[in-house]
Amino acid sequence: MTRAELQLLRSLRDKKHREELGLYAVEGEKIVAELQAAGHPFEKVYGTEDWTGGKTHEIGAPDMARVSHFPTPSSVLAVGRIRRDALAKGELERGLTLALDGVQDPGNVGTILRIADWFGIDRVLLSPSCADLHSQKVLQASMGSFARVRTIIADLGDALAGVGAPIIGCALEGRDVHGLPAMSDAVVVIGSEGRGLSDEVRARLSYSVTIPRLGSAESLNAAVAAAVVCDNLRRALG
Amino acid sequence: MTRAELQLLRSLRDKKHREELGLYAVEGEKIVAELQAAGHPFEKVYGTEDWTGGKTHEIGAPDMARVSHFPTPSSVLAVGRIRRDALAKGELERGLTLALDGVQDPGNVGTILRIADWFGIDRVLLSPSCADLHSQKVLQASMGSFARVRTIIADLGDALAGVGAPIIGCALEGRDVHGLPAMSDAVVVIGSEGRGLSDEVRARLSYSVTIPRLGSAESLNAAVAAAVVCDNLRRALG
Repeated sequence: MTRAELQLLRSLRDKKHREELGLYAVEGEKIVAELQAAGHPFEKVYGTEDWTGGKTHEIGAPDMARVSHFPTPSSVLAVGRIRRDALAKGELERGLTLALDGVQDPGNVGTILRIADWFGIDRVLLSPSCADLHSQKVLQASMGSFARVRTIIADLGDALAGVGAPIIGCALEGRDVHGLPAMSDAVVVIGSEGRGLSDEVRARLSYSVTIPRLGSAESLNAAVAAAVVCDNLRRALG
Repeated sequence: MTRAELQLLRSLRDKKHREELGLYAVEGEKIVAELQAAGHPFEKVYGTEDWTGGKTHEIGAPDMARVSHFPTPSSVLAVGRIRRDALAKGELERGLTLALDGVQDPGNVGTILRIADWFGIDRVLLSPSCADLHSQKVLQASMGSFARVRTIIADLGDALAGVGAPIIGCALEGRDVHGLPAMSDAVVVIGSEGRGLSDEVRARLSYSVTIPRLGSAESLNAAVAAAVVCDNLRRALG
């Protein structure tokens, strides 16, 4: 491996470099195998001799240690091209959308992709203030669902403007989520862990829903709240 | 601060030392403030001059850097005594219990305490194979709910033996969780992220429930599954 190649791979741990190069890296046997099994297209797959999955390049363990983001390097690192999908006109009018408004914890963003995949949500919309979709932590927490869920990064104020389908916010004060009507078209917005929903999003909401609380916790984690709302949406549809 | 004191505090990052000493440490402004607000009893609270909350000991920033588990030390580190509650006879017959069977991710264990606190679950039972309740990551993910939720570490095979209340497992194949009957007394068991429920627990189950899947994800995260089941339990009770 050339020095330039090593340097390029190492640089992909920074969002800035990922954006400049239009590339991202993901490492680890489990997550790379899951993404490969889901048919996810990679440009390059660097594997050591221990890696038994598909690879495009053999890499020595010392080089892997140089490029790895991990204290204990794994046997595989895959590089993919960042695809930025845009919303089609009227897309949010049809099907179920989860919109993430400043969800900054990468574990939550990845877990929400997995939740969307489980509940058959049609797409996940992310505000630019969310954790970077192409970071190792997001990809890893998605457990391969990153390859199956349609994701779109968009300014939520703009994206939600003029949408006729119900736009439902998750908030600490709102209608009981158990009373959600049957809706095959809806947008559900999950707010930031610390600050809740932004003013731009709040202005677009049809209404808010709340998960009934019987105890004393101040809030639920963003991914947990998303899952409970998705389950109620699906249950209402029957 | 004496060298012995510094060494003791540093040693508390290891489970082995916590168990030997019967003490644990938790650091970080947010989590210590949350636990203090919940009235949690600490033996000692070491704060630097930047820490504005209650403290029993002033600590210099260099000493804090020595004892801290963090790359960037916070302004407070609190030490508490480990309390090991035991199950009262017949306790599981009454109220709602979440039982964790080998949930090893500390973030999941902490998040489940927060979920139990939100949904007003009476107690959380943890198998000894779960992540250590007194680790920084569990305490931090619990967001203060650690102070409010009754937790008991017990062998689940023994603890569940002879329990008359329904014992319900979360599994990939089971009855639809949307059909849960109204139950004010029940034990819900959440399995390990990788291996699901253990054989000892499986042998004690009344039945299993499943969260209906409409998409392609292979599983849901343990904390996410716990939350969806708790919401359905609470909804059934009305």
